[in-house]
Amino acid sequence: MSSTRPICFLSDFGLGEDFVGLCKGVMLRLAPEATVIDLTHDVPGFAVEAGAEILEHATHYMPEGTVYLAIVDPGVGTERRALALSTTDGALLVGPDNGLLIPAADSLGGIKSAVSLTNADNHLQPVSNTFHGRDIFSPAAARLATGLDPARLGEVVDPASLARIDLPGVEREGANTLAASIISVDRYGNARLSAMAEETGFEFGALLKVETGESGEMLVRYVETFGHSKVGDLVIVPDSHQHLSLSVNKGHASRALALKMGDRVRLTLLENGPEHDARRNE
Amino acid sequence: MSSTRPICFLSDFGLGEDFVGLCKGVMLRLAPEATVIDLTHDVPGFAVEAGAEILEHATHYMPEGTVYLAIVDPGVGTERRALALSTTDGALLVGPDNGLLIPAADSLGGIKSAVSLTNADNHLQPVSNTFHGRDIFSPAAARLATGLDPARLGEVVDPASLARIDLPGVEREGANTLAASIISVDRYGNARLSAMAEETGFEFGALLKVETGESGEMLVRYVETFGHSKVGDLVIVPDSHQHLSLSVNKGHASRALALKMGDRVRLTLLENGPEHDARRNE
Amino acid sequence: MSSTRPICFLSDFGLGEDFVGLCKGVMLRLAPEATVIDLTHDVPGFAVEAGAEILEHATHYMPEGTVYLAIVDPGVGTERRALALSTTDGALLVGPDNGLLIPAADSLGGIKSAVSLTNADNHLQPVSNTFHGRDIFSPAAARLATGLDPARLGEVVDPASLARIDLPGVEREGANTLAASIISVDRYGNARLSAMAEETGFEFGALLKVETGESGEMLVRYVETFGHSKVGDLVIVPDSHQHLSLSVNKGHASRALALKMGDRVRLTLLENGPEHDARRNE
Repeated sequence: MSSTRPICFLSDFGLGEDFVGLCKGVMLRLAPEATVIDLTHDVPGFAVEAGAEILEHATHYMPEGTVYLAIVDPGVGTERRALALSTTDGALLVGPDNGLLIPAADSLGGIKSAVSLTNADNHLQPVSNTFHGRDIFSPAAARLATGLDPARLGEVVDPASLARIDLPGVEREGANTLAASIISVDRYGNARLSAMAEETGFEFGALLKVETGESGEMLVRYVETFGHSKVGDLVIVPDSHQHLSLSVNKGHASRALALKMGDRVRLTLLENGPEHDARRNE
Repeated sequence: MSSTRPICFLSDFGLGEDFVGLCKGVMLRLAPEATVIDLTHDVPGFAVEAGAEILEHATHYMPEGTVYLAIVDPGVGTERRALALSTTDGALLVGPDNGLLIPAADSLGGIKSAVSLTNADNHLQPVSNTFHGRDIFSPAAARLATGLDPARLGEVVDPASLARIDLPGVEREGANTLAASIISVDRYGNARLSAMAEETGFEFGALLKVETGESGEMLVRYVETFGHSKVGDLVIVPDSHQHLSLSVNKGHASRALALKMGDRVRLTLLENGPEHDARRNE
Repeated sequence: MSSTRPICFLSDFGLGEDFVGLCKGVMLRLAPEATVIDLTHDVPGFAVEAGAEILEHATHYMPEGTVYLAIVDPGVGTERRALALSTTDGALLVGPDNGLLIPAADSLGGIKSAVSLTNADNHLQPVSNTFHGRDIFSPAAARLATGLDPARLGEVVDPASLARIDLPGVEREGANTLAASIISVDRYGNARLSAMAEETGFEFGALLKVETGESGEMLVRYVETFGHSKVGDLVIVPDSHQHLSLSVNKGHASRALALKMGDRVRLTLLENGPEHDARRNE
């Protein structure tokens, strides 16, 4: 069995160009035995917070000892640092110093040490101004996968100096109302909210008032699965990340309601569970 | 050489989110040496029949002993079973009990045994209601790839109890006419028909009358390759799966004729081959 | 460590169908230890020149000894030959005889020998008329990856007999003006020009007059990075391939200016550098 660590790769490069392929070429030249797991390359362009949420979530499913390579980097070509982080659980993370890596590092036991990737011996020369993914981050990830000590990649920096981001959360507005943000919209039109299922206090079957900027107020059931609703129903359902999702059964909620990433949504609990099954009432 | 079986992975997840990447993380955690072959993740959403046809076709090209992981699962979260099938040819298939796996299993020698994936020790806990791909199917596929006996994944079930689907076929309407369905439309606008080349009795050069709901009647040549037509010609041509395809040479048939998946197309043979070459007549 | 060569795979197949997945199945059946690096499968359909440029560029980043499998093949099903090329640097290239492979082969030390893939023992039977990628090119690439002598794949042919293409270049029109072509447009709307940074003689900070067919004349700065411009500025910036790119800082140049692949763009140097930083002047 190979002792090379697997590399979990997330970016906003898309697959329409050769960016991802070039990064993989660079990695496999330095780490021929590495397995690269493409987490997704369709993070919305420059959406550091969305990328951070996806990367954090992935830490629960990747192999132990994975090297996380994450590139959503609106500051490329400026003075922002390039980082390699080691975590208490034995994982490694490589990416820009813009907060992208922090929630994942916290989920992997917390940052044990941080290095700024200043050692030019580990960069591809000449370093492009626009593509540090290929020239700085991929070589670093590959060398860490083969066992290089992170300290060889540059200077140790104080974890307290790293850029942080605030992932959008939930605001309580009185006993029965909370406001959340749409953190992403998937290909089926499901609008994922920043609210986690367990923090809402909602029980399955609850009746909610939903207010969005564009579409006014609607009454919506909170259901365990689409199976507890009728085709065409607008529902709130926990998604695979345990976030609440505003969805239409076999329909396209974001199109129907003109929802988009970043929109604010207010939820008011009118009547809590127990589970109400629309199909059984027909 | 690794003794881990390769895993051929088909789904309707798309690559726009992290669904495929999370499934791969789960698989490589359990089967670090596995090679995952992405067949396609762009099966139209919930299109079980289209997925079944693609999976069946792929069985002719994948390595011997492959584990097929196929997830097109409109019934996720309902009572439908999760399955692992063993075939007479030594392949394994994992996916929902909705007919998706059956044509491929038949192509791989037929079902030798079927297991319902009820053993919770092999599920990721907690099991999500919406993402059995990650929590039930991927762990099962990975463990089969490393050699686990399928019976360890749950209870043996009677193959006769499995859900079946009827792939759309061809109806004969008299001696010279047949009706077929459009089973998919590709990025070039080629509309693939449920009719297989060999079952039609058409010879290259045949002149056909084509009737579609939207576009009325057209006269079309059946040609061996685009090379036997002029740029802009509407033709019928056998595709790489040996299905008839309604196509425009360097054009976009589905846009030109308003064709879409599921449409019914009637073909009448007016004049059979031999091969007629439009270019030679110019 | 495996002695199988890695395979770098480029095509215009897209990921919406099973074409890429079937090719990989065929390759891994013959070369189970091969690592396949997807360079990109979104070369615009039949765009041989765009594919040739991407492949050539990739040679600077792939592992030594890579087998390049490149399929952009408008002539499939005609008499055009199928090729395997060996280069002086020890690389191998497989693809159609339409010029696609030549710039990459030149970059890899030049062609040492060329073989036409006429040996039917190495084809999948029956050979489809439309999908030589699966039936001829993939088996050849896989066998070369496992060490087969290229001469075993068919007949040696004279490199001078191979089809060539002219990649779009730059035309000088007097001392200060040059004309270039748009060779691609990426997902961010950046229009990449056939002009390489070093051949223009422009220095960072230069003021240029840009003329396009659709949008008339504009004054544009040539900057080292987006960091040297303001949000919304139209600039010329060297991209990751060292081509000039016509771009809008955090905007979408191709949409704003109605630019598309193949358009001709004329650049006139009005005032050369030194670097001018729009932000510092605010």
